Amino acid sequence: MTEPTVGEDAEARARAERHVGRPRERREDPDLLTGNAEYTDDITAPGETHLAFVRSPHGHADVEAIDTRAAEAMDGVLAAYTWADLREAGIPGRLPITDRVRGDVPGHPVLADGRVRYQGQPVAAVVAESRYRAADAAAAVDVSYTPREAAVDPVDATASDAPTLFEACPDNVATAGELGDEAATDAAFEDADEVVELDLVNNRLVANAMEPRAALARVHDGTLRVEMTSQSPHRHRSKLAQTLGLRENDVRVVAPDVGGGFGHKGHHHPGEAMAAWAARELDRPVKWVATRSENYQAGAHGRDHVTTAALAFDADGTIRGLRADTYAGVGGYGLGSGPALATWYGRLLAGEYEIPAVCCRTRGVFTNTAPVHSYRGAGRPEAIYVLERLVKRAADALGCDPAAFRRRNLLDPDDFPHETAVGATYDSGEYEAAMDRALDLVDYEAVREKRGEEGANGERGKRGERGERAERDDGRLVGVGLANFVESTGGGFESGVVRVHPDGGVTVFAGTHSHGQGHATTYAQIVADELGIPDEDVEVVEGDTDRIPAGTGTFGSRSTITAGSALAESAADVREKARDIAASELEAAPEDTVFEDGAFHVAGAPEQSVAFADVARAAYGRLPGDLEPGLEETTFFEQEETAYAFGTHAAVVAVDPETGEVDVERYVAVDDCGVQVNPKIVEGQVHGGVAQGLGQALYEGAQYDENGTLLTGSMQDYTVPKADQIPELTTDATETPSPTNPLGVKGIGEAGTIAAPPAVVNAVVDALEPYGVDHVDMPLTEERVWRAIQQSG
Amino acid sequence: MTEPTVGEDAEARARAERHVGRPRERREDPDLLTGNAEYTDDITAPGETHLAFVRSPHGHADVEAIDTRAAEAMDGVLAAYTWADLREAGIPGRLPITDRVRGDVPGHPVLADGRVRYQGQPVAAVVAESRYRAADAAAAVDVSYTPREAAVDPVDATASDAPTLFEACPDNVATAGELGDEAATDAAFEDADEVVELDLVNNRLVANAMEPRAALARVHDGTLRVEMTSQSPHRHRSKLAQTLGLRENDVRVVAPDVGGGFGHKGHHHPGEAMAAWAARELDRPVKWVATRSENYQAGAHGRDHVTTAALAFDADGTIRGLRADTYAGVGGYGLGSGPALATWYGRLLAGEYEIPAVCCRTRGVFTNTAPVHSYRGAGRPEAIYVLERLVKRAADALGCDPAAFRRRNLLDPDDFPHETAVGATYDSGEYEAAMDRALDLVDYEAVREKRGEEGANGERGKRGERGERAERDDGRLVGVGLANFVESTGGGFESGVVRVHPDGGVTVFAGTHSHGQGHATTYAQIVADELGIPDEDVEVVEGDTDRIPAGTGTFGSRSTITAGSALAESAADVREKARDIAASELEAAPEDTVFEDGAFHVAGAPEQSVAFADVARAAYGRLPGDLEPGLEETTFFEQEETAYAFGTHAAVVAVDPETGEVDVERYVAVDDCGVQVNPKIVEGQVHGGVAQGLGQALYEGAQYDENGTLLTGSMQDYTVPKADQIPELTTDATETPSPTNPLGVKGIGEAGTIAAPPAVVNAVVDALEPYGVDHVDMPLTEERVWRAIQQSG
Repeated sequence: MTEPTVGEDAEARARAERHVGRPRERREDPDLLTGNAEYTDDITAPGETHLAFVRSPHGHADVEAIDTRAAEAMDGVLAAYTWADLREAGIPGRLPITDRVRGDVPGHPVLADGRVRYQGQPVAAVVAESRYRAADAAAAVDVSYTPREAAVDPVDATASDAPTLFEACPDNVATAGELGDEAATDAAFEDADEVVELDLVNNRLVANAMEPRAALARVHDGTLRVEMTSQSPHRHRSKLAQTLGLRENDVRVVAPDVGGGFGHKGHHHPGEAMAAWAARELDRPVKWVATRSENYQAGAHGRDHVTTAALAFDADGTIRGLRADTYAGVGGYGLGSGPALATWYGRLLAGEYEIPAVCCRTRGVFTNTAPVHSYRGAGRPEAIYVLERLVKRAADALGCDPAAFRRRNLLDPDDFPHETAVGATYDSGEYEAAMDRALDLVDYEAVREKRGEEGANGERGKRGERGERAERDDGRLVGVGLANFVESTGGGFESGVVRVHPDGGVTVFAGTHSHGQGHATTYAQIVADELGIPDEDVEVVEGDTDRIPAGTGTFGSRSTITAGSALAESAADVREKARDIAASELEAAPEDTVFEDGAFHVAGAPEQSVAFADVARAAYGRLPGDLEPGLEETTFFEQEETAYAFGTHAAVVAVDPETGEVDVERYVAVDDCGVQVNPKIVEGQVHGGVAQGLGQALYEGAQYDENGTLLTGSMQDYTVPKADQIPELTTDATETPSPTNPLGVKGIGEAGTIAAPPAVVNAVVDALEPYGVDHVDMPLTEERVWRAIQQSG
Repeated sequence: MTEPTVGEDAEARARAERHVGRPRERREDPDLLTGNAEYTDDITAPGETHLAFVRSPHGHADVEAIDTRAAEAMDGVLAAYTWADLREAGIPGRLPITDRVRGDVPGHPVLADGRVRYQGQPVAAVVAESRYRAADAAAAVDVSYTPREAAVDPVDATASDAPTLFEACPDNVATAGELGDEAATDAAFEDADEVVELDLVNNRLVANAMEPRAALARVHDGTLRVEMTSQSPHRHRSKLAQTLGLRENDVRVVAPDVGGGFGHKGHHHPGEAMAAWAARELDRPVKWVATRSENYQAGAHGRDHVTTAALAFDADGTIRGLRADTYAGVGGYGLGSGPALATWYGRLLAGEYEIPAVCCRTRGVFTNTAPVHSYRGAGRPEAIYVLERLVKRAADALGCDPAAFRRRNLLDPDDFPHETAVGATYDSGEYEAAMDRALDLVDYEAVREKRGEEGANGERGKRGERGERAERDDGRLVGVGLANFVESTGGGFESGVVRVHPDGGVTVFAGTHSHGQGHATTYAQIVADELGIPDEDVEVVEGDTDRIPAGTGTFGSRSTITAGSALAESAADVREKARDIAASELEAAPEDTVFEDGAFHVAGAPEQSVAFADVARAAYGRLPGDLEPGLEETTFFEQEETAYAFGTHAAVVAVDPETGEVDVERYVAVDDCGVQVNPKIVEGQVHGGVAQGLGQALYEGAQYDENGTLLTGSMQDYTVPKADQIPELTTDATETPSPTNPLGVKGIGEAGTIAAPPAVVNAVVDALEPYGVDHVDMPLTEERVWRAIQQSG
């Protein structure tokens, strides 16, 4: 055998030194963790003013009169605005609304147009020299309302005697959709040996980002610049421009550090539109920062599905068909594409299984509640919850082990690409391997044996990891729950620019915007590999419509797939051009020039070389021949096919039948998001997603009374999980590359919120098996679980 | 004849509607003229601090000790820094210096390294909570100096007994250059019938931009962001990074509105480096704004040439050769490429003439004066001044009309491309046409007849346009002076991005930075023509190293040539892609798709069309086939050959022999800068340049005493022309397109400063002909002119 050539040798070394796949620490964290992040409210504009909203205390009412005189007369108050002012200015003044909404229903007005349709809807706005003065002035605005009857529940709101929110939509049904083949599904149900049915509520959630929504708007040189809490700066720019009747090139949206989003910072809201308009009117910077209460009342909410679903299967456990009928709350206004969300959630209803017939009917329904839009998972959790609850119910009905029931119906690795009965085309998957790994890690067989037995967890109680558990008096019921899931990830286009500076340093620009995802770390790894340089040499810039060509944004577990791929392709183009420049410097043919150890070499004559930094410097001087100066490339990457991440999560719970308290004792997450660029960040995403999914399963849920008054308007009433309520998580992964993008990656940002709710509810139902409880709606509060046990009596 | 096709019709209409060539009002002006510009000092960073320098009162001295204790003890003072602090920090701490400097001479230290080499050199810096406190604290720093003998005059400084500034450069000669063929020139001088010789001083000038130099530095996320007065943000970034030992991708330079530059905001200075370093040290924003005095003492100066020059010619007026020997003051430190400037100024010495032999010898000399760098024209005015003064002297020596003398030697339109004896290759020119136009406009023959006659301008005195002139007692001497010039314009590369937003609006980005040139107006015209849209739809962004790929900057009359061409090419690429998208929407072949009236049409079926804005929206959705999403293109345009602008300026002066007062009575400028994108802006550039050239000719000149103390350190001593000192200007143009760039443009920014000094001095010498005065050095103050008259006596 001959010696490896220099090239081969280098290739082996390069593989060993690749950055992709390494669990690098997040470069964002030092600033984020030490208070050095720069959030929107940390930015101060000289002469800035402060905006506060007057919000409706009613869920549904007519606005009879607004008296702003007392507010305007206060010292330090610059202006008080109502809908009349926006009308007079001749701007659209309404947020764009999807054309999927039935009838000619208007979009959300920036300020109430004579009627309020949810509690917390902005009715007037005041601008003052200080935030305190603005709050005082808002309180001094006198608004007269005539309350109307409210529609709150999405099912009840479609009743013929329900109050109507919009004349153009008398039945309150904003959007309606059907997916799958109804006839085939009916036939499958008739043929099947067994059918189980469940009524399920997917609880309404409130996005509780650490940083509430905020905007700082200012005008210079005719350009409106808005620093704001945005997941999607370019989309926000488009929408702001539409609301205010501006051209997009007169608007610049800058997203500084953003303290979490979970979807609701991807939507366009009245807050930023009002601040921007006021800044133009007053020719002064205007800042608006939502309070936590405003976030609860008027931040977009998520989920809010009421579903009747059924699964048909044969006695041997073969699934024959699935049917779902969903009423989804849309809220008091259609916010962007919010009302359309429900109409496509059914796309994931087949999950990991071979289900020959699926049919899903949906109605998005206007109710006198905060507008609903995508919330971490955005339709995927709702679908998987329906499916995995049915699967558990079916297995129990058959007396079959739920894992075995699942295994019987799993798609096989050679089934891909696979088109489901609801029209989703899965790219790749090895579902059974992931499920086996999860079962193994959760010690499934052992737990199943003890499920439902009082005191069954005594052994684990002795682990002694937490003192109080080791000592506990064990009268609790153990259960194990599984959730198999697929998740559609990515989609759309993203821009990625790779710019090499004259000194060889690299800055990359992407149209996504990290708000906790660690893009700066991940993207640097991707680009560093393509350019064969240390990832510290790569700076990552996001969040500025002026600095970044175009963008779709960060949501839907799409960023690494789309922006990562755009950057990888741009970096490959840069490498190619750098090689051409190096070749001309080395007086060699480009194809005889190899890149290794940070330099280009002549193949076979490694001593003839030119360093990457020298190529960069040369690129900004005069280049020979047809070579254009510069060393920068831009790619608009379009992900044409969806990448389907998947996995199996398993939860072990102990339920105290005396109190209804649920303790998640163990949680195992086995995820497959294809190639992992940074396993540490993947793990972090799973941790965060599971915590949020546990929140939905156990604690969270927005509650309105019959007048549309929010009963859960603070962190005391709407309880997000605290650190000590999160069990120890065991994460693991399989890696099935996706063919949909050059990196082979799939998204991971939402997996935990998809899998955790059905895993936990399935576990609790499993634990309550002795009581014959076949379902409890989320959140599984002590009261609900206790009542379920009592009622099963 | 057949009817014109739709395409031809549209083409004719498009030509008529072109934006290029129209005298559009500058879109920048409303903000600039109403106080709404945003200069660096207008920007406020939360928590900003203020930096003030302690500067040397000596032209040359050793720094024995610096005691900062009293300053540091003051309330509100955050820090006081000296060179020791920079050394301790381990940063380079010296501004980059051209490698053309002889010996191992160090670059300008940000703070004095134990010796000061010019008055005003920064010795220490203090940072305080307010600007007032910083000034007080700077005054409280106690510095002990031991003065040294100073070298001030660039010729004297090369004498063997002159004090030495740098041990590494004992003769103070920083740079030396030779251009042309010495032997051939010697031979030409021997052969020629006549030789004239002149000793000329090209007076040292101070750039007096309305806005002094300023910087606001802050650090966020490890990135240093510096808002600063910059003509060349990307170059400033490179140099700042070098001085501070940073990577370029850790530095962002943003240039807000800039109130004039004239070259000196293209150089890297200690001010911005010190502010940036302090911001990093203190982790607080640091602002530094130069006072007018600091601008005089330590802003880069310009010109400062002492030249002995001679012209050889035959009795028939044919020029045979030119020789020039120049000592150019470099100042106390080599500032970037400043010391190299003089070495290439001779490239333009042949001017518009066929001169078979030219030889130019130059020495850049360190002197105990402010560093010298490029000042509007940067070498071109110096060369044309030498040439045109010699031409006037030669014509007078021959008793020949100076216009006729010039005409005899002018290059012919078919001589192009023409390589001069000093290696410049002229692209195109019609010199005689421009000269004829100027002679005609200035009424040359009539003025020549009356030149030197006392009272000759009595007739014009009756014009009565200005009351006081109509009544004047006329004992004055009239003269007319000409200046023919060529100007090397453009060079290097520039980046230009054309971005079409989803709503069809366009933003373009260029690496130049307007600081009075009106790029936003000009570039919009260029791009609008390429895209066939209104120029109001095009926004122009400059001045941000993060928003713009790369850049060389605005200087050397290069912006429209380089950035204009880059944008034109990017726009053409965008149009091409838009056509491909439109074709797919129209289901037509791209070659059958024509663009007119803001829409793409199927050729021959104009009713099938898609609007540009709809194409833009489609571009950001899913596109068919291989089309990548997005509608944006980037070009790095390299101007490979220099574009030579040219023209003839003519001045008519009246000189009062009793007082020496010079009155410029008429001034005609005929310029040829190729295709004019915006004739109004061209005219404005000529006006400004001529005013500045008149300043050099008549009023301005930095004076040092023998100790290196600046005697002209304020606007009272160094007098820039006031509005009422600028004569009525008559401007006209010829238009000889340049083949060096797709737009056919040449630069125009510096023409006036090149032509006005020789035109005015020639006119004064012309007027003083009765006294036999053959030269007076600039500035032509009353005293100097009066003395020249007396001495000629």
